[in-house]
Amino acid sequence: MSELDIDAVLDRVRFDAAGLLPAVIQQHDTREVLMVGWMDAEALRRTLTEGRVTFWSRSRQEYWRKGDTSGHAQHVRGAALDCDGDTLLVQIDQVGVACHTGARSCFDVDPLEPVVGARS
Amino acid sequence: MSELDIDAVLDRVRFDAAGLLPAVIQQHDTREVLMVGWMDAEALRRTLTEGRVTFWSRSRQEYWRKGDTSGHAQHVRGAALDCDGDTLLVQIDQVGVACHTGARSCFDVDPLEPVVGARS
Repeated sequence: MSELDIDAVLDRVRFDAAGLLPAVIQQHDTREVLMVGWMDAEALRRTLTEGRVTFWSRSRQEYWRKGDTSGHAQHVRGAALDCDGDTLLVQIDQVGVACHTGARSCFDVDPLEPVVGARS
Repeated sequence: MSELDIDAVLDRVRFDAAGLLPAVIQQHDTREVLMVGWMDAEALRRTLTEGRVTFWSRSRQEYWRKGDTSGHAQHVRGAALDCDGDTLLVQIDQVGVACHTGARSCFDVDPLEPVVGARS
């Protein structure tokens, strides 16, 4: 589409039973996966129209515009729904760190050591 | 940890009310986000110990080892839990394409045009 039609986007989204959509947050240039948050329709609308990422906090039950408290804002650079409309990918420019632990990515905190596979 | 202790990992995971965990699948070298799938404890155990990604299919209510039907296997290269243990990131080597539509990534199918933000 040539311009963002937010109602058309919301019509394509398949929110879960709680009315939420998982959003994968990726640094636009390095392609690091920084975190996964959750959005309801209003958080998604704000994220796609305001240039800043807003989540719905499931623990606090409130909107959470990333960076308003911490300063660690996420500036939107791109976004896509997946093929069945039940997951969002948002490419952003992260100010500071994404994780409340102080780590750059929430996935830097608990690396696992899986058995590695290879093409036969 | 120096070796994978699957029970210790499962103890740290916070599965949702349905017993599931979202898993972000990322191509290990290009860092493309290819898809998001869901795992229960058994799918997670298989993924971390078999070198191939296995999901729990919510629609079919069965285990789904990616590639067994399509040939488009996902070979595990790394994995991490996030800071609060409710999301998994899996770095993989994708054979062929990840998406059932034939697209490389499930997020190639429906790109949006959000309002872009920038650091002030």
